[in-house]
Amino acid sequence: MSRDEQFAKQAAALGYSFDGEIKIGGNYTPLVRDGNCIYVSGQIPRVDNTVVVTGPAGTEVSLAQAQLAAKVCAMRALALLQRSLGSLERVKAVPRITVYVQSGEGFTQQSEVADGASEILFNVLGPAGVHTRTSVGVFQLPKNATVEVDLIASVE
Amino acid sequence: MSRDEQFAKQAAALGYSFDGEIKIGGNYTPLVRDGNCIYVSGQIPRVDNTVVVTGPAGTEVSLAQAQLAAKVCAMRALALLQRSLGSLERVKAVPRITVYVQSGEGFTQQSEVADGASEILFNVLGPAGVHTRTSVGVFQLPKNATVEVDLIASVE
Amino acid sequence: MSRDEQFAKQAAALGYSFDGEIKIGGNYTPLVRDGNCIYVSGQIPRVDNTVVVTGPAGTEVSLAQAQLAAKVCAMRALALLQRSLGSLERVKAVPRITVYVQSGEGFTQQSEVADGASEILFNVLGPAGVHTRTSVGVFQLPKNATVEVDLIASVE
Repeated sequence: MSRDEQFAKQAAALGYSFDGEIKIGGNYTPLVRDGNCIYVSGQIPRVDNTVVVTGPAGTEVSLAQAQLAAKVCAMRALALLQRSLGSLERVKAVPRITVYVQSGEGFTQQSEVADGASEILFNVLGPAGVHTRTSVGVFQLPKNATVEVDLIASVE
Repeated sequence: MSRDEQFAKQAAALGYSFDGEIKIGGNYTPLVRDGNCIYVSGQIPRVDNTVVVTGPAGTEVSLAQAQLAAKVCAMRALALLQRSLGSLERVKAVPRITVYVQSGEGFTQQSEVADGASEILFNVLGPAGVHTRTSVGVFQLPKNATVEVDLIASVE
Repeated sequence: MSRDEQFAKQAAALGYSFDGEIKIGGNYTPLVRDGNCIYVSGQIPRVDNTVVVTGPAGTEVSLAQAQLAAKVCAMRALALLQRSLGSLERVKAVPRITVYVQSGEGFTQQSEVADGASEILFNVLGPAGVHTRTSVGVFQLPKNATVEVDLIASVE
């Protein structure tokens, strides 16, 4: 199965479509290529006009819901790469992802939340999805999103 | 108008001078070049010896003041690039900025705060100011700063 | 003294061994090389199976303990580089480190905490340890760690 087919399969499994506009929340660009590096802006779990998971993990939001949020963020990042490159087959590596988790008091499972994003990268990109990761627990995120993920991909 | 003239114009509009020493708060370097990439350390809104906007956005600090803080952070980053390169004309792109906003409880307009930094980049650098962005709401920042901005620029 | 000898000396001074497995907390890779850049995943102050400093800085954890945590994080990152490259002599630069400090209310000495990590880089790598830095105060970190540090190194 090609990576683009894997992407479609993951989208179906999540029950969300990533075919619509990938909206951004401010005066910037979703993706900038610099040499062989592609920087992808921080993605929140927005599908069309709705942020699908909001609130702090651990108190208002369960681990499973936060993981779902991380998956949607990663899917959005992949959707942006797919549109920009024509196909996800052109991704060579994803050297860095950073996962910001809006965390309620005492919640320390940021790594487990971030595994949601990592799983998507591995499932869609296979070995090219290997990545380094930093996950931290922040106090708030734009639009009250539970998770935000940014990444750097490389091509060619 | 050249980018350096635009920079001077923005400084005048903000009412701050960025001609003094760009102080840093620890044992590191404001700027490191690696190949064609220039990494700029996290900038807080310090002008000379004063952090001009402090405290959490949304509770103690208004959106407008937080946006001002973001602008000052971005101006400091540009001042560092200008000094290092001789002129901002040499900046090719700013592939990534990260905007950390000290956020009071319930404040979710981190993107709107970050627009202050983005506006400076576009106004000064024009098309070379196009950037990806991640904005998050953190619990505290060094010296109680309201905003901290770091970035990666590329040259040549 | 070679950098690898300096590394051993710093480990002895800290009283920790970094010879064991460098455990990670999720489904990702500790280190990815992309061209001349090596991305190192976020490191918490874990030695073998124990996170040696936990809890928020400023309230439960002293500045000195938080600095120790930052040192251990930096040592782990260096240990990963050493294993991957065979020797720390091959590190050319460390253009970026980001230091996330779990911060109690009112704690604003994130830069001072981060100096612990910076000190290790300078002591072990000498001039090649020169780096840009961003330090922020986050609400929570994985496994209740007090500090998390990630970095980008370059080689050749």
